[in-house]
Amino acid sequence: MKHRIITISREFGSGGRTIGRMTAEELHIPCYDEELIDTIVQKSGFDKEYVKEYGEYAPGSNWLSLALANRDYSGRSLQDDLWSIQRSIILDLAEKGPCVIVGRCADYILRDTADCLKVFIHASMEKRAQRIVSVYGEREDAPETRLRKKDKSRRAYYQYYTDTAWGDIRSYHVALDSGVLGIEACVRIIRQLYENNLS
Amino acid sequence: MKHRIITISREFGSGGRTIGRMTAEELHIPCYDEELIDTIVQKSGFDKEYVKEYGEYAPGSNWLSLALANRDYSGRSLQDDLWSIQRSIILDLAEKGPCVIVGRCADYILRDTADCLKVFIHASMEKRAQRIVSVYGEREDAPETRLRKKDKSRRAYYQYYTDTAWGDIRSYHVALDSGVLGIEACVRIIRQLYENNLS
Repeated sequence: MKHRIITISREFGSGGRTIGRMTAEELHIPCYDEELIDTIVQKSGFDKEYVKEYGEYAPGSNWLSLALANRDYSGRSLQDDLWSIQRSIILDLAEKGPCVIVGRCADYILRDTADCLKVFIHASMEKRAQRIVSVYGEREDAPETRLRKKDKSRRAYYQYYTDTAWGDIRSYHVALDSGVLGIEACVRIIRQLYENNLS
Repeated sequence: MKHRIITISREFGSGGRTIGRMTAEELHIPCYDEELIDTIVQKSGFDKEYVKEYGEYAPGSNWLSLALANRDYSGRSLQDDLWSIQRSIILDLAEKGPCVIVGRCADYILRDTADCLKVFIHASMEKRAQRIVSVYGEREDAPETRLRKKDKSRRAYYQYYTDTAWGDIRSYHVALDSGVLGIEACVRIIRQLYENNLS
């Protein structure tokens, strides 16, 4: 039997992770985000920072060349290994029971195997900049620069491993502007759709 | 004072027009769709079929060259005149009071002047094909061919007059897959967001 899963893809700084956690709490189902990273670390033996950085982002202009180079005799790279481990963990979680999974291409990975409500959360550059400064504090780079880098590397990672465009409106059952609608309204909509079994 | 407006952009065959009508009925506010076309016909003197075809679509591969050629001494084409008339009617309607406006780049036209909830409705090719056959009947072209033509010409029109991409996820406060969620769920979400003044 297929369990009902919610996948949340999100722009960095849009509050998508918070929306995922709140929705899961209200629905009394687990939310896999930080826990997912911990499980990947345990099963892969990779360093946590490596998993955080390379399991969802293609950081730096040399990521693609690294992913294509650094291959063993079978033609696989470390990045490919991390992708495979993440993928199998996400498939296992979806088998276990209803849950919310934040990021990590779960929408794509579960496209044929789970009963998913696929959500995308976005917000304007201005709102996201305010949010990352309030959540993560000031950094050397301006918040807009940090956001552009994150967007670019997340998009590149998604495109490389799924061969589809990240943030294409047609890939999601519901896409919400959290900056305009607010976190609570987003949670309410997702919860209602899930409870009404509308996907 | 700015009135609350709902703009509905939609893929052809996604049921966006029906969703607009039902939402307006439930909110007891007018829905401008067919009436908008009639007003444009009255004010412009253009033929109704011309307004339907050229006020939202860039049909045929020669549309762009026609829009760029066929210009009078001031450099304007008939297509530009139709765009200007549509634009001013939409701005007037938004001044009059709360309403739902379906299509015709209203989201873009009202971006700075109205308090808008901007909605995009889409659905899979398969669901839209089923819908257009049931609503409009069989035609010479296969439904998928008709949909691809409509998508292409609507996208071209929007891009030409707004200089922004049609269906870009970041342009809408809420985007919904009506084929998966169903018409009623879409209406409920839009109505709730409007009633809660969340935009």
